[in-house]
Amino acid sequence: MRLAAGVEWALHCCAVLGGLDEGESIAAADLATLYDLPPSYFAKSLQALSAAGIVESSRGKAGGYSLAQPADAVTMLDIVDAVDGEPTFRCTEIRKRGPTGQPDDAYPRPCGIAQRMADADAAWRASLAAVTIGDLMRGARTALDPRQATASREWLAVKVRHR
Amino acid sequence: MRLAAGVEWALHCCAVLGGLDEGESIAAADLATLYDLPPSYFAKSLQALSAAGIVESSRGKAGGYSLAQPADAVTMLDIVDAVDGEPTFRCTEIRKRGPTGQPDDAYPRPCGIAQRMADADAAWRASLAAVTIGDLMRGARTALDPRQATASREWLAVKVRHR
Repeated sequence: MRLAAGVEWALHCCAVLGGLDEGESIAAADLATLYDLPPSYFAKSLQALSAAGIVESSRGKAGGYSLAQPADAVTMLDIVDAVDGEPTFRCTEIRKRGPTGQPDDAYPRPCGIAQRMADADAAWRASLAAVTIGDLMRGARTALDPRQATASREWLAVKVRHR
Repeated sequence: MRLAAGVEWALHCCAVLGGLDEGESIAAADLATLYDLPPSYFAKSLQALSAAGIVESSRGKAGGYSLAQPADAVTMLDIVDAVDGEPTFRCTEIRKRGPTGQPDDAYPRPCGIAQRMADADAAWRASLAAVTIGDLMRGARTALDPRQATASREWLAVKVRHR
């Protein structure tokens, strides 16, 4: 069981976009370069975030991506769901199959195993729903090495586009 | 993100094996037939459960599979880990990459995003660790349709092997 690689990219990029001021944006190509990501595959992640209303893009020469919502309004779960929203467990109702299987009306209730797996998914989702992009940004700032902070600041000073 | 199909098979089959008495077992081929599973692919799930010490097999004409531990000592997490034990999120340290990346010593702490994803995995695992095969069996018994109960009892009466 493994989330799509795009989930990691999307989480990091949303944290970067969360640091922009009103009217600022970053081009998709620059975000891809920032983390050394495959541009066309990364574009799909951005499109998924855009379709989910998490990021928005402005067109034109000075266009680029920015968060479509305040950083504290977007949770990790929102981002994960946008990029790879599949539940971990798919019940294929094997209890109904084979020589002891019965007609559908013998199974008025969901399979107990599927229910327990769904409970676990709900716990996973609740954990991610409790953390916002804002939380990630504040956490990253606390942990940031001064060299990294300087490099990021200088990179942003060159790459950020202004509407 | 999706668990291997073998997880569903393994959970159901362990619940069946949990109902056997001491000295009883079921052949792998019969378990596959019971839930209409692809025999050779299902054999891999059984081997994984065996390697994890969850089931054991006896050889010979009357041989077959049984639980290697009491049903209340084996959790859903044990079974899931045996068949598909991968964490959902793999941190590839993209924060270290690209034009703003720094030497490894600039990152004394794990990435905050990876930590939060690991927290969610821990919540998922805790949920599954709280449910045993015994719990699944008791839950299934409560919900069982009488037709299904009869069919299962009759199937087991024919298929269960005695040491």
